[in-house]
Amino acid sequence: MIFVGFGFLMTFLKRYGYSSVSLNLLIASLALQWAAVVKGFLSMSNGKFKISVTTLINSDFATASVLISFGALLGKLSPMQSLVLAMVEIPIFAANEHIGVHFMRAVDIGGSMYVHVFGAYFGLAAARVLCTKSTNEHPQEGANYQSDLFSMIGTVFLWMFWPSFNSALAPGDDRQRAVVNTVLSLASCTVVAFAVSSMLSGENKLAMVHVQNATLAGGVAVGTTADFMIGPWCAILIGGLAGCLSTVGYKFFTPKMNAAKIHDTCGVNNLHGMPGLMAGLFGVLFTGLANVENYGT
Amino acid sequence: MIFVGFGFLMTFLKRYGYSSVSLNLLIASLALQWAAVVKGFLSMSNGKFKISVTTLINSDFATASVLISFGALLGKLSPMQSLVLAMVEIPIFAANEHIGVHFMRAVDIGGSMYVHVFGAYFGLAAARVLCTKSTNEHPQEGANYQSDLFSMIGTVFLWMFWPSFNSALAPGDDRQRAVVNTVLSLASCTVVAFAVSSMLSGENKLAMVHVQNATLAGGVAVGTTADFMIGPWCAILIGGLAGCLSTVGYKFFTPKMNAAKIHDTCGVNNLHGMPGLMAGLFGVLFTGLANVENYGT
Amino acid sequence: MIFVGFGFLMTFLKRYGYSSVSLNLLIASLALQWAAVVKGFLSMSNGKFKISVTTLINSDFATASVLISFGALLGKLSPMQSLVLAMVEIPIFAANEHIGVHFMRAVDIGGSMYVHVFGAYFGLAAARVLCTKSTNEHPQEGANYQSDLFSMIGTVFLWMFWPSFNSALAPGDDRQRAVVNTVLSLASCTVVAFAVSSMLSGENKLAMVHVQNATLAGGVAVGTTADFMIGPWCAILIGGLAGCLSTVGYKFFTPKMNAAKIHDTCGVNNLHGMPGLMAGLFGVLFTGLANVENYGT
Repeated sequence: MIFVGFGFLMTFLKRYGYSSVSLNLLIASLALQWAAVVKGFLSMSNGKFKISVTTLINSDFATASVLISFGALLGKLSPMQSLVLAMVEIPIFAANEHIGVHFMRAVDIGGSMYVHVFGAYFGLAAARVLCTKSTNEHPQEGANYQSDLFSMIGTVFLWMFWPSFNSALAPGDDRQRAVVNTVLSLASCTVVAFAVSSMLSGENKLAMVHVQNATLAGGVAVGTTADFMIGPWCAILIGGLAGCLSTVGYKFFTPKMNAAKIHDTCGVNNLHGMPGLMAGLFGVLFTGLANVENYGT
Repeated sequence: MIFVGFGFLMTFLKRYGYSSVSLNLLIASLALQWAAVVKGFLSMSNGKFKISVTTLINSDFATASVLISFGALLGKLSPMQSLVLAMVEIPIFAANEHIGVHFMRAVDIGGSMYVHVFGAYFGLAAARVLCTKSTNEHPQEGANYQSDLFSMIGTVFLWMFWPSFNSALAPGDDRQRAVVNTVLSLASCTVVAFAVSSMLSGENKLAMVHVQNATLAGGVAVGTTADFMIGPWCAILIGGLAGCLSTVGYKFFTPKMNAAKIHDTCGVNNLHGMPGLMAGLFGVLFTGLANVENYGT
Repeated sequence: MIFVGFGFLMTFLKRYGYSSVSLNLLIASLALQWAAVVKGFLSMSNGKFKISVTTLINSDFATASVLISFGALLGKLSPMQSLVLAMVEIPIFAANEHIGVHFMRAVDIGGSMYVHVFGAYFGLAAARVLCTKSTNEHPQEGANYQSDLFSMIGTVFLWMFWPSFNSALAPGDDRQRAVVNTVLSLASCTVVAFAVSSMLSGENKLAMVHVQNATLAGGVAVGTTADFMIGPWCAILIGGLAGCLSTVGYKFFTPKMNAAKIHDTCGVNNLHGMPGLMAGLFGVLFTGLANVENYGT
């Protein structure tokens, strides 16, 4: 499982340009160790803490959150600034998760809220502070044929490894349920994202950025409820809504955010932010609906 | 296992061009859900059916079959036509498999017959209908240095994940046997394919298309018998024969088929069709040879 | 596990150029079978030997050793010469390992000594014999933007799969320990390699060759002691030392070795040779320090 978790982490890397690949490898390595230490302090007993495979998976989640934030900040920070921001983000992430899990008892198996929403809006807040002029299109931001193909490798690997990301921390039967729900949600999200993208573009062409990103929103949106007994139809419904929301977001929200001086390089609001909020709402809904009939005692 | 199954599926994608990557992602997502529903109806009890990880692996096999068919049809269909064909192919696939498994009791652990042979010849039949003029070489069909490297990524991942594809549905010890046999067959197939390719080309050069495809024929050819007690020498023999057959096929059969108006874009006849038929024949042979001495009771 | 092992093997491939990818696929396939046979003869009883998944993992290790040797020899041999050298190297590898494990009782879970050190110096010795003139820079040896990105795919996959390579043969709890130690060592190695690379280059730029290779040295250096009870701080220390040693090696040792007519195409001395020796020394150190207090009886 741990390998797959790291796979998830690392495949982020391939989605960006040349020097960014190196930078992200560095940030991921540093954040991983720092997260293990910070989370260790939070769970210390007798002045010592243990580092196990579970610790590493948890640190992996924290690192994923940092990398999501950098999706919004790509091209705005120097390497040194990036490292400082990563060091600052990890403790805030850990504190946020600690409060959520231990005091508010909010369960979030795939980390949709703690990882995706937190990472996306932390990154966007930083982007707002750093971005001084409103831009709709940055000259160096474009993609070409080859870089889009490289991005597709990243997309395909994220697609493949998402089920294991969402199920990594689930025990026993729950893991199987999490896998099935995530796969169905992703598949449904992909179909809807293609359809909406095709509709929005007017002509019969697909926007590559939708294909690369909106197809993954279903994995985020089902994250919180992946191990619930939501039933296959509901996983498909969640995925479809997420695909629609994410594609619409790329088309309409991102230009507006740019106008409002919130420049979102990789569109993390559409891929991680809004689908993550959706996941949280569905989590509330299904927790309210949960009863003894479905879950036993 | 399911992840690996999807890995298998998705790596197909990288082998084609730009818009094809997106199209195949869409087809795979749709086919996966449709296959789960169609197969569900076939195994319904009390008007309901379950969706488990095993269901997803089975749907995965069905989707693989659809993607193989599209290997023959690539560049001949519009996106909408592709989706319709996928919707049509899945029920036929499911019916074919249902009849084979339940009425004829033909076991096919790696899906060589049900997935590879069916997918290849379904695709070729469609290609025959759609292809109205005989072509030996299509101007836009060529490969370049970069696209060949991308294809090699696909080949290497298929090589890696083939053992798990052939063993995904095998229980207990059978799974280990399926892994060992598939690895040996693939390794032997690769060596033979290189040797034959080098021999056929006359000069001391390798045809990249042989390297990309014929090296995988061993995985198809051993699919049906992967979990049988065929012994390592036999797995190596099967792999070698498949490598030879597939390379010869690319050299001699594909041009003839083109002349006969059956245009096979990715050479699925050589990679999936003929090695799959070989797998079926070996399945018959070893079932005939099976006895109490080898298998116990 | 076996899949991941093969993944490791195959990702080597992507690090080299075009025809080399094909050549390495061929060598790996041949070496794998030959290693299974050679190792089988060494463990024969009653004139027969078994081939199981463990055999394949062991053959995988032997094949990795051959591929490391070819890292030093890349571009110096014709395909036929490469195959002959692979056939010669496997029995020597097997004999070396057999003597080490059975007569000297040296345990090496991640194969740092038997695989990495042996492979690196076998390759370098062959390179010394074949290389007749001292060269500091070969005209055709350069990399470009695209090929560097392809190399990074290889690096990221090796990074991901290294923990499973080091833990593949460890039983039970040891496997978890090996995974945790390897991940920590790799993460620490990456951070140090970036820092040292940035320092050595004078300007604030990174040498891509350091990023591609030195980041992996931590996995080699912790190989021998991965399943020992070395504690997380020690894994991080080993990784950091390896990252520093490897980067310094690329900067200072490789030019000197070229001057001494030992031309090391991929820098295997820096990635496999020296970190592997380091792993051996740490293995001796921790075996000396091992006591009943830490390990029980």
